[in-house]
Amino acid sequence: MSKRQIKLGFIGLGFIGTIHSIACFSMPLIFKNLPFEVKLGPVCKNNTEDIPHFFEKGVKSIEEMLEDGDLDAVDICTPNYLHYEQAMKVIEKGIPLYLEKPMGVNGKEAYEIMEKAKEKGLIHQTALMYRFMPAVNQARDMIKNGEIGEILNFKALMLHSGYMDPKRPMSWKMKKATSGGGAIVDMGIHLVDAVRFMIGEIKSLRANSKTYFKKRPVSKGSDIYEEVDVDDWTSVEVEMENGGWGSIEASRISPDLEEETIFEIYGTKGSIKITTKQPRYAILYKKQENVQIIGDYDKKSKFSEYSMSIYPPEKYSLGWMVDLHMASLINFFTNIVEGKIVFSETPTFDEAYKDQLILDKILLSAENNGKVISNLKD
Amino acid sequence: MSKRQIKLGFIGLGFIGTIHSIACFSMPLIFKNLPFEVKLGPVCKNNTEDIPHFFEKGVKSIEEMLEDGDLDAVDICTPNYLHYEQAMKVIEKGIPLYLEKPMGVNGKEAYEIMEKAKEKGLIHQTALMYRFMPAVNQARDMIKNGEIGEILNFKALMLHSGYMDPKRPMSWKMKKATSGGGAIVDMGIHLVDAVRFMIGEIKSLRANSKTYFKKRPVSKGSDIYEEVDVDDWTSVEVEMENGGWGSIEASRISPDLEEETIFEIYGTKGSIKITTKQPRYAILYKKQENVQIIGDYDKKSKFSEYSMSIYPPEKYSLGWMVDLHMASLINFFTNIVEGKIVFSETPTFDEAYKDQLILDKILLSAENNGKVISNLKD
Amino acid sequence: MSKRQIKLGFIGLGFIGTIHSIACFSMPLIFKNLPFEVKLGPVCKNNTEDIPHFFEKGVKSIEEMLEDGDLDAVDICTPNYLHYEQAMKVIEKGIPLYLEKPMGVNGKEAYEIMEKAKEKGLIHQTALMYRFMPAVNQARDMIKNGEIGEILNFKALMLHSGYMDPKRPMSWKMKKATSGGGAIVDMGIHLVDAVRFMIGEIKSLRANSKTYFKKRPVSKGSDIYEEVDVDDWTSVEVEMENGGWGSIEASRISPDLEEETIFEIYGTKGSIKITTKQPRYAILYKKQENVQIIGDYDKKSKFSEYSMSIYPPEKYSLGWMVDLHMASLINFFTNIVEGKIVFSETPTFDEAYKDQLILDKILLSAENNGKVISNLKD
Amino acid sequence: MSKRQIKLGFIGLGFIGTIHSIACFSMPLIFKNLPFEVKLGPVCKNNTEDIPHFFEKGVKSIEEMLEDGDLDAVDICTPNYLHYEQAMKVIEKGIPLYLEKPMGVNGKEAYEIMEKAKEKGLIHQTALMYRFMPAVNQARDMIKNGEIGEILNFKALMLHSGYMDPKRPMSWKMKKATSGGGAIVDMGIHLVDAVRFMIGEIKSLRANSKTYFKKRPVSKGSDIYEEVDVDDWTSVEVEMENGGWGSIEASRISPDLEEETIFEIYGTKGSIKITTKQPRYAILYKKQENVQIIGDYDKKSKFSEYSMSIYPPEKYSLGWMVDLHMASLINFFTNIVEGKIVFSETPTFDEAYKDQLILDKILLSAENNGKVISNLKD
Repeated sequence: MSKRQIKLGFIGLGFIGTIHSIACFSMPLIFKNLPFEVKLGPVCKNNTEDIPHFFEKGVKSIEEMLEDGDLDAVDICTPNYLHYEQAMKVIEKGIPLYLEKPMGVNGKEAYEIMEKAKEKGLIHQTALMYRFMPAVNQARDMIKNGEIGEILNFKALMLHSGYMDPKRPMSWKMKKATSGGGAIVDMGIHLVDAVRFMIGEIKSLRANSKTYFKKRPVSKGSDIYEEVDVDDWTSVEVEMENGGWGSIEASRISPDLEEETIFEIYGTKGSIKITTKQPRYAILYKKQENVQIIGDYDKKSKFSEYSMSIYPPEKYSLGWMVDLHMASLINFFTNIVEGKIVFSETPTFDEAYKDQLILDKILLSAENNGKVISNLKD
Repeated sequence: MSKRQIKLGFIGLGFIGTIHSIACFSMPLIFKNLPFEVKLGPVCKNNTEDIPHFFEKGVKSIEEMLEDGDLDAVDICTPNYLHYEQAMKVIEKGIPLYLEKPMGVNGKEAYEIMEKAKEKGLIHQTALMYRFMPAVNQARDMIKNGEIGEILNFKALMLHSGYMDPKRPMSWKMKKATSGGGAIVDMGIHLVDAVRFMIGEIKSLRANSKTYFKKRPVSKGSDIYEEVDVDDWTSVEVEMENGGWGSIEASRISPDLEEETIFEIYGTKGSIKITTKQPRYAILYKKQENVQIIGDYDKKSKFSEYSMSIYPPEKYSLGWMVDLHMASLINFFTNIVEGKIVFSETPTFDEAYKDQLILDKILLSAENNGKVISNLKD
Repeated sequence: MSKRQIKLGFIGLGFIGTIHSIACFSMPLIFKNLPFEVKLGPVCKNNTEDIPHFFEKGVKSIEEMLEDGDLDAVDICTPNYLHYEQAMKVIEKGIPLYLEKPMGVNGKEAYEIMEKAKEKGLIHQTALMYRFMPAVNQARDMIKNGEIGEILNFKALMLHSGYMDPKRPMSWKMKKATSGGGAIVDMGIHLVDAVRFMIGEIKSLRANSKTYFKKRPVSKGSDIYEEVDVDDWTSVEVEMENGGWGSIEASRISPDLEEETIFEIYGTKGSIKITTKQPRYAILYKKQENVQIIGDYDKKSKFSEYSMSIYPPEKYSLGWMVDLHMASLINFFTNIVEGKIVFSETPTFDEAYKDQLILDKILLSAENNGKVISNLKD
Repeated sequence: MSKRQIKLGFIGLGFIGTIHSIACFSMPLIFKNLPFEVKLGPVCKNNTEDIPHFFEKGVKSIEEMLEDGDLDAVDICTPNYLHYEQAMKVIEKGIPLYLEKPMGVNGKEAYEIMEKAKEKGLIHQTALMYRFMPAVNQARDMIKNGEIGEILNFKALMLHSGYMDPKRPMSWKMKKATSGGGAIVDMGIHLVDAVRFMIGEIKSLRANSKTYFKKRPVSKGSDIYEEVDVDDWTSVEVEMENGGWGSIEASRISPDLEEETIFEIYGTKGSIKITTKQPRYAILYKKQENVQIIGDYDKKSKFSEYSMSIYPPEKYSLGWMVDLHMASLINFFTNIVEGKIVFSETPTFDEAYKDQLILDKILLSAENNGKVISNLKD
């Protein structure tokens, strides 16, 4: 059986583009029976000198890339403020689009990208890749199957410390105009999306943000400082539509030897814990039996089964970051082959737009000194 | 050298009284050179049948106990709503008092007890025993010594699940009139006190409380239900006088295989973590060196050195609950021998009163839908 | 119902006697419905000055103690080389005996004590208290129930570091004549006993011993050194009668922040792990299901159920050392009340004798450069 | 600066070849300033159909591959029994060779390969990649710097369970003729090499091997069984030239949720622990200070500094397997560029030959019922 050839163009090849491209070429080595073969096409970036030889070529502009008539898909991995214009151009050309999160610097941009993609009927996806984490899917299945009863309370935490050097110079991630927000946008969107995916929709929220490092040198070693207008740390209290409540916290100022993403979900019959230190399994505690269980979970949803089938097996693990991105990209490429978005659990533009709307409300609440915001739908 | 004899009367001998009495008994076996010897005197409780023979006797009323002229100290371990009247009687008699937390069901009761004890010039102490935990003292010393720089953010968590059986009948702990509050009073007072002890005073706060189990059978197996008017779960956002901020969370609805008390403190130069799973050592992470350290810490304050000297060594450990109570009681008895409260770090009535004032404000904020409360001093 | 009064005499009140006595007086506070009440009787030790007041009295000789006609039981906690003579005297008097491990300094002494106790028909027990550890009983039940299939291999480890200071002076534990052996006798007997209890009888063995600290000051600070003739470290390869094999290792030269006893048992269908860091639960891994389980185990043997009923519940835990000794002593006292050794799982003199025979063979193998020894029964 | 082009041919592309090729591909994306660029050249394997397009081509024979005159290096990832013939051919052609472990099925084969490579003066290396693990280098540096004093005892463990399904059919790994040995050869060689690298040379040894699954179906589902003549499990007692002693254990029959490689090294002043769960840092315990330290270690050897510089930084980690192989391969390619083996710590054929000699002696001891073997040099 011949495999569908997919020529993939990259826009941006920084940290996250690197992770995507490692995922793309490792794919056929780990999964022999994929229905497609990904060719690493052109890379659009400023400095095209350091592009490894196994990409087709470097190009300086997105227009130049899109002139190339035979692109089957494009992967956008640029800074947030560039997403909107780039995505609109790719969609206009009718090329399937894989877009890093967040879709834009605010809900409005996300909305327009989503609408445009719908109009064109394009296969599309965002890199909200926690939806492909086995532990997240186990937790989602366990919750649906009533293992922990009614959900009372949860925590979703992403505690990092990447920006704690006061001399770390200003970057696009530290200005609202270019990033859309700080820790809560950059990392928090994963938490918001995973919470919605596992537990359900958010009904109201209240946020508290802090910016500790209020000024940054404009460049490395400079004495000139610019103001940081995004959060270093944000904590959000949320009430869920199904009656539970919880907190979502994203931090760039929590120093520790190892960084972790953590979910703790407490219900009337037990609890579930997830840590990125063991992304394959959620830890289930069943209160009545007083038993803690970790390992395979056999009452899987269809999506859960599918996502396990495209997640690298343990002996081939490339670290959880690449593993997650690989599964997410396989889902995207498979949808291209199928000509439709097969699983509704896919992190589509609709889902990412909903997440971004919530981010907008979180920023609004934080700006208004922790005002409770209940209208999350517009 | 002959030891000072201290005849100790107990009021109440439930769970916590049992822990206190085991501590008193074990003390001279573990510490050979204490300057005092504790004799287990009368026990005042309703059912005096089941009092082990090594207590002097059982008595039915506090008056009967106090008639006994040779009591050197009294330890009150009764339900919260009984503290005020009992404490006032003991203090009136001029007998040194060890009082379980919280001092009363509200700040007003605590204030009056504190004032009365001052008036009488009595040696007194509360059982806010986290002040004697080696890890807590290490953390306090490390913070004072600047090991983690300026404190940015912290978490203080006590996640239990003792009240999750909906058939668990009503008790004094589930009514505000008899307990003063739910999880946040019963357990949260330890967190409030330890935060103040380690990090400093609280400047303002905002609280969020939930009562999940809103009704309880009046007694075991009964079909008649009574309303629960205290919290199952409370989370408090606090701002500290020294500029940091953090959260304090006490829960009775967080099921897990093991219960834990956790402190995580993040500063500009590193972080400190404490868990009751290892009460002897705080975990220090130094960001610049990228090193995590656990074990002895040699830049100790005087109180820290002293508290280590009265904390059971590892091979004699009786579990962290008894170990902490033993150190706390040794401090109390030593102060009786010395005729003064030697260390200002002692959990005196003044300190416990300050904690209880904060609890009152937490309850007020929670009742007012999370209103920020800044005036914490009256 | 009136409780049976048991007046208990102590011979020796060092570290382990202290642990036993804390267990004895805490018992009635934690377990309200015991069918007996233990009175702390006379203590026989050299220095009777520092005996706390709640013991009846101090006596200088065992004869003086035994003259006291109303002793209901005696607990021997002296150095190993004194056990034989003391135990024989107690047994001769017909008093139920609780004897610390090892019974004597060799199998011959153990044999004679065992035979004498049989002759007198005495209730007796040794302090091989791992038989009362909930995790050990869970493991034993799991193995019997076939949870991990046929046992292939195991490890039993006790890694301590108490003797690593080269200036630590000579003591009875470092001479074979007074101790019977070093790490392998002092600690290894627990491993040998627990292995036999959980897995079955040993068929053959081969041992390797090392003495790193070959000389010790005769007393603290002395320049005169005496030779150490016992092991600091011993590792034993064993073959089991049921076909599995494994290793038993006891060390006094393995420095670490926390000391631990560990069992790892591997079978054809899974594995079981035990650590003293969590003495309540064994960790069961089931290979076919790829699931790791920790918590309550419901297919309990009768002894397992019984031992759980006399093991302090978690909130009353006095640390695993006291918890284990309390359960062990409750079993002993209950047998006195019942007039017979109710459970064959009790660590009787027969069982302790079998363990000590194995220790003798381990020493023999180590002395013979690791010779395999198959005849373990005489 | 133009980079040296290195065209790399692969012989074998199974599991380990896949890991090597992912490492080669990812290298230039993670390390921008490498002095070379690796081109994925021809792959020699039986089935050339499933070779991804980014390799130059598939070839059926090694001769065909070597005809291609422009190969700069060859990587052999085939079953052990094929190494000798293939390696000799590559060396004969004068092409730098990267050879998977073990070099051959016995020391004799390894010797001849080593001698031939010396004769030809070739750059060469084996995939004994634990030498590039940061934690292993930290441990090595710490030991050299005296952090734990004189080494007394160690454990090196690799506990897997890959062969526990009795229906898993026969493969080349389960016959001595094709593998050279079982668990102890396949996995144990890493332990032997890492022990020699960190601690020093082995003076004598004694081994114990077991084969639990003695027969295997000749192919999947077959009723015909073939005999397994290699070990499932081997434990080796070793005495070191510097006076310490320890054990090396490799197992295919130790089921657990996660597989781990563990080193525990105990010295007179402390201990060091390594687990593949945290390959970046060794855990150092300093007994005198009673402190456990994990994180960066600043007294690094030159090789340690170098190896850290070629090990993927945490955010780019591709899992420890790929990370280690990437560092190992970067060392090999750098040596090609430099025209010499720069660091003597490189796992050269000489080092791998010494390891294999020890494996031969381990097999000999096991076959001779645990005979002590002291002559390890011929």
